[in-house]
Amino acid sequence: MSFRDRLRPDIAELSALRLFDYGSTRTDLVRLDCNEAPFGVDADVMDEFRAELDRLSLNRYPDVSGEPLRRALAARWGVETEEILLGNGSIELLALLMTAFGGVRTGRPAKVLYPDPSFPHYEVIARTSGLVPIPVPLEADFRLDEGKVTAAIAEHDPALILIASPNNPTGNAFDPDALERLARRSDAVFVVDEAYADFAGGGGAPATLIPRARRTPGLLVTRTFSKIGYAGMRLGALLGAREVVSELDKVRLPWNVNAFTLAFAQVLLRHPERMEARARHVIELRADLRARLQAVPGVVVFPSEANFVLVRIPLPTAAVFARMCALGVLVKNVSRPGLLERCLRITVGTAVENARCASVLATALR
Amino acid sequence: MSFRDRLRPDIAELSALRLFDYGSTRTDLVRLDCNEAPFGVDADVMDEFRAELDRLSLNRYPDVSGEPLRRALAARWGVETEEILLGNGSIELLALLMTAFGGVRTGRPAKVLYPDPSFPHYEVIARTSGLVPIPVPLEADFRLDEGKVTAAIAEHDPALILIASPNNPTGNAFDPDALERLARRSDAVFVVDEAYADFAGGGGAPATLIPRARRTPGLLVTRTFSKIGYAGMRLGALLGAREVVSELDKVRLPWNVNAFTLAFAQVLLRHPERMEARARHVIELRADLRARLQAVPGVVVFPSEANFVLVRIPLPTAAVFARMCALGVLVKNVSRPGLLERCLRITVGTAVENARCASVLATALR
Repeated sequence: MSFRDRLRPDIAELSALRLFDYGSTRTDLVRLDCNEAPFGVDADVMDEFRAELDRLSLNRYPDVSGEPLRRALAARWGVETEEILLGNGSIELLALLMTAFGGVRTGRPAKVLYPDPSFPHYEVIARTSGLVPIPVPLEADFRLDEGKVTAAIAEHDPALILIASPNNPTGNAFDPDALERLARRSDAVFVVDEAYADFAGGGGAPATLIPRARRTPGLLVTRTFSKIGYAGMRLGALLGAREVVSELDKVRLPWNVNAFTLAFAQVLLRHPERMEARARHVIELRADLRARLQAVPGVVVFPSEANFVLVRIPLPTAAVFARMCALGVLVKNVSRPGLLERCLRITVGTAVENARCASVLATALR
Repeated sequence: MSFRDRLRPDIAELSALRLFDYGSTRTDLVRLDCNEAPFGVDADVMDEFRAELDRLSLNRYPDVSGEPLRRALAARWGVETEEILLGNGSIELLALLMTAFGGVRTGRPAKVLYPDPSFPHYEVIARTSGLVPIPVPLEADFRLDEGKVTAAIAEHDPALILIASPNNPTGNAFDPDALERLARRSDAVFVVDEAYADFAGGGGAPATLIPRARRTPGLLVTRTFSKIGYAGMRLGALLGAREVVSELDKVRLPWNVNAFTLAFAQVLLRHPERMEARARHVIELRADLRARLQAVPGVVVFPSEANFVLVRIPLPTAAVFARMCALGVLVKNVSRPGLLERCLRITVGTAVENARCASVLATALR
């Protein structure tokens, strides 16, 4: 008997996440493929972190619940400390939700419902966690049809509903009132993945369901620091009613957020205005990128409330993607039959990167 | 319907990990409860890490497979890069093994077999991952009876066997030949948790099953950097045949080890001699702690190949533990009916901490 006979057959059939290999020699690439922020950490913030390092007691396990950081985040988001759970990126929190609300009931594995297209990893985590994925198609304009979602919920009785707003890779945000109505009407645990919420709402108060999640036990929100400039530190948060958070806390692996990240995030939160300024800057650069892409003949630029822009191009994407890469600009080829046909997802870059991207796209389309 | 109706009933019944709350005001406590190293990071190592921070590109996602670090670890352990998987502590890798080799086959959930007593979190992870835990009792001298384990394997047909060697909290290591025989004879995936292996083998070449794991596809080894002085960075590794590692890699969440940890561990691995010196130092301090504890009347001190010492005391542990805590020394009360009756687990501290611990224990027993 080999180890393969013990491996779950559905895992044997999966393939590992493979990011596009652009070759380690290509250090000159403009990387607009991963929805990262185009600017590094402020030098004075890094200096503050450097100064913290001697106080880290790295020989000790990190604070098991990350309480001081949760307290700072609670102040930032206007919630209580007990309404926050920290994760090693929000993806860990989504996996934890699948574990807690998955399992087999009356002989049938639990289902998780989410819009399609959306973040492809929802399906991967669902499958590794043993849940049945139920993708519900979006409309042609990427809207969520409330009636269609309600009908799908009634048909499938999912344990979990997972909605990214703003959505990836389409870039649009869904109506918060509609999301709250759906959450209240359904018997499922309703999770709004707000990975891109820092860039929604046009630079004023960002649209978020956090206040609604506090008063609706079945409604949860996840957030991340990855898009606003700190993907390397891996910090996500789940927000919701404390009775839900305390149940999820049982499934969380201890010390899932390490001492470096706890300390770095606390330094960041001493300067909340920096994060708001970053978000506003990305929103300005998004307008810049959209304008430049709109000037490329034949390219359809979709509206965006995120830190990326979805475009439809007039040629097959594989060849254009390869040509752009050869010309030094890496974007994400998200094309597949249906709503995303001939679509590329382009992360908002600096003004220089945006200009280069638009120019390279124009060349690649010629 | 409330969210509780969607929560897995077995999770609703679990309680969250609660570490002993010694009160945040007690900064004077000697903490010998968590098997951490008693000394912090070397100042020059921390300076090297400080110098790396500007090169981190924290706005980018960390290297998804941690390849440069895996290469350095491969050199350290004499294996190939493809034979290593990194985890957010080895506990994440154990959870990942449960996910990959768990699941339901022909109507029955998979089982995981491990010695009892051992690391209590094996049971917690097994239960949250939906596996049936099968604890196999150790002998009175904490030995593993090969025949008894073989019989338990035959009876239960576990998907996974998990053996900590050196074992926690008993402190003894198991015979590597016996472990290899068990692994070869069984149809299960056989995991040796070597969290404490740096302190085994008496300061010479540490006893490890890594070379055997390379050539035995069903045999895997996990390691951690937590015990040797770096619990705060959260880094674990799984070692085994590349075909197993590549299957497990599919279940791993992307970016599970962050940019700080990848960079810090690479700095550490530039100075492997520091880690060996730390292990030797802890082994010396362990002899010191054992000698001091043996001098306390009525205390039985068990042999140890780990960075802690198990003792049996002549009085009920709860009262003695509380008295020790009030006197400023925190140890781990592992007492329960059976082999661990009236037992405390005491982490090896500095010479000063060891002396204080023995003196406080003597006072508490009076």
